[in-house]
Amino acid sequence: MARLNLDRITSSPGKISSVFLNTPQYQCESLSKILDCQITIKLEMLNPVRSFKGRGTDLAVANLIAHNPNTVVVCASAGNLGQALAYSGRSFGIPTTVIASVSANPLKLKRIREFGAELHLVPGDFEAARVFARELSETKGFQLIEDSENIDTCEGAATIGLELLQGSDIDVVLVALGGGAMATGIGFVLKNLAPAVQLICVQPAGAPAMTLSWQAGKVIETETADTIADGVAGRCPIPAVLDDLLEVADDTVLVNETSIVRGMRLLYEHCGLVVEPSAALGIAALLENPERFKEARVATILCGGNVNHKDFQAWVQ
Amino acid sequence: MARLNLDRITSSPGKISSVFLNTPQYQCESLSKILDCQITIKLEMLNPVRSFKGRGTDLAVANLIAHNPNTVVVCASAGNLGQALAYSGRSFGIPTTVIASVSANPLKLKRIREFGAELHLVPGDFEAARVFARELSETKGFQLIEDSENIDTCEGAATIGLELLQGSDIDVVLVALGGGAMATGIGFVLKNLAPAVQLICVQPAGAPAMTLSWQAGKVIETETADTIADGVAGRCPIPAVLDDLLEVADDTVLVNETSIVRGMRLLYEHCGLVVEPSAALGIAALLENPERFKEARVATILCGGNVNHKDFQAWVQ
Repeated sequence: MARLNLDRITSSPGKISSVFLNTPQYQCESLSKILDCQITIKLEMLNPVRSFKGRGTDLAVANLIAHNPNTVVVCASAGNLGQALAYSGRSFGIPTTVIASVSANPLKLKRIREFGAELHLVPGDFEAARVFARELSETKGFQLIEDSENIDTCEGAATIGLELLQGSDIDVVLVALGGGAMATGIGFVLKNLAPAVQLICVQPAGAPAMTLSWQAGKVIETETADTIADGVAGRCPIPAVLDDLLEVADDTVLVNETSIVRGMRLLYEHCGLVVEPSAALGIAALLENPERFKEARVATILCGGNVNHKDFQAWVQ
Repeated sequence: MARLNLDRITSSPGKISSVFLNTPQYQCESLSKILDCQITIKLEMLNPVRSFKGRGTDLAVANLIAHNPNTVVVCASAGNLGQALAYSGRSFGIPTTVIASVSANPLKLKRIREFGAELHLVPGDFEAARVFARELSETKGFQLIEDSENIDTCEGAATIGLELLQGSDIDVVLVALGGGAMATGIGFVLKNLAPAVQLICVQPAGAPAMTLSWQAGKVIETETADTIADGVAGRCPIPAVLDDLLEVADDTVLVNETSIVRGMRLLYEHCGLVVEPSAALGIAALLENPERFKEARVATILCGGNVNHKDFQAWVQ
């Protein structure tokens, strides 16, 4: 049985700031024509932290301080969770520490600091940051918000699924797959409230750990994670999250970097949207599998927009 | 007495598609730092027609077909109203004709056709299109939706004001001023529900007809309208709309083209947003009047995002 709970999810929006909720979702007709399907986009990058993660961090912090108003939180982050937790921590008035890799996206790091969190950079990649955050949590007694393992990060993301189902009819939802919070959250809502809708997870071929694990039915770690989609570049899936994903995902798909960039460019040219690479994974999957999704009613979540404008220029030109 | 009516406005959202309503609004902190004020942005370009005008056209068409299901509509447009009316007409299943200048923004014209409207191009500028639309309405018996004169276009835009007041506290609202629908709509709501909040209208110095008229207290037409902000480039203010504006606007401000481009660039670099020039008028006013708005709680409406991506690249680089 998945760890998520529908009653908790449906009562979550009351604990989440309105800036993160009820995000725009609509059909983009010019993109639909090009991709030969009916595509609904849901925009999760238009809020102060520019990603969907504020849903989960608001929920996590609200639940923590309900038990202990003097809590102190820490997380490891590739950048988006850190920004969101910094924002939520500041909103609720609790100290927040974020651990990130020295190689993390500089824009994301800058914004974590601007939101008032204490930021520690560690050598190595995102997985090294995760190890350090766990250690700090144990030695200092900080509350660790481990992305995807912390159930609030999944159930916060699940509120996207509730909103999605209030809109038009859909056959398939394409979600970016990283640690798994968004995929399991949305997938759990679909399986419970609209079981006919397929959940298909999309991951970069250069960072396929969770996809390989889902396919094998057991955790498979990878040596490297090599992708421009820094938001989903993990190597070490969490067993409990994989178990949830095995219950709710209908399929997982890998896409190449060229398709991710093409997806970003299409979203920019046809919808006037600036998204980070992770947010273009769904479009990349449509580009690589035109026959599979032909004429289907597809929704995809544009999960983040934290991209340096110079990188973006280079990608979309 | 202004032509607008608060009861009609508060009951309008029920007649407007949810894709146009409850748009994102939030403080952009990095922009606030640069502009030395607390700036809240409200995003009106993230819907199928990429501007706020769908609020007014949905309302207008809903009200028309309530009286006559076989109605046929026509409007003159610089491009955004035309797209919105084409979209609303198609949603409600009525034939729609749009008249535009041959020199109108090609992206906007393309999208008007894609939404299934009949498009007539006329020589001359936007004012020539207005004259032709009026003639066509008279000879063919089409219902004319004259932007800003048609009260639904103002009261539809007024719903932005209702939403704005549900958010955080604000001292000043900066709105783009063209024909006046958005300015009078939002201004009327403010004057009635939050009279302490100032409404300041912003127009390009190259297309100042409504501003000059407001300052003089009578209609002043201009010979030319020369600005990249095609959405607000009118020359002939409508007397009834000017009367409304005189009641609800606290001030009008002119800005130069350089500031408009700088405003677009700031919104792109700091908020990851692609807006058309008209939508950057509020930021342009902040750039040109730093002392006036220092530390104020300012909201501005990003009213449209219909910009060709090549033009946009050229402007923001």
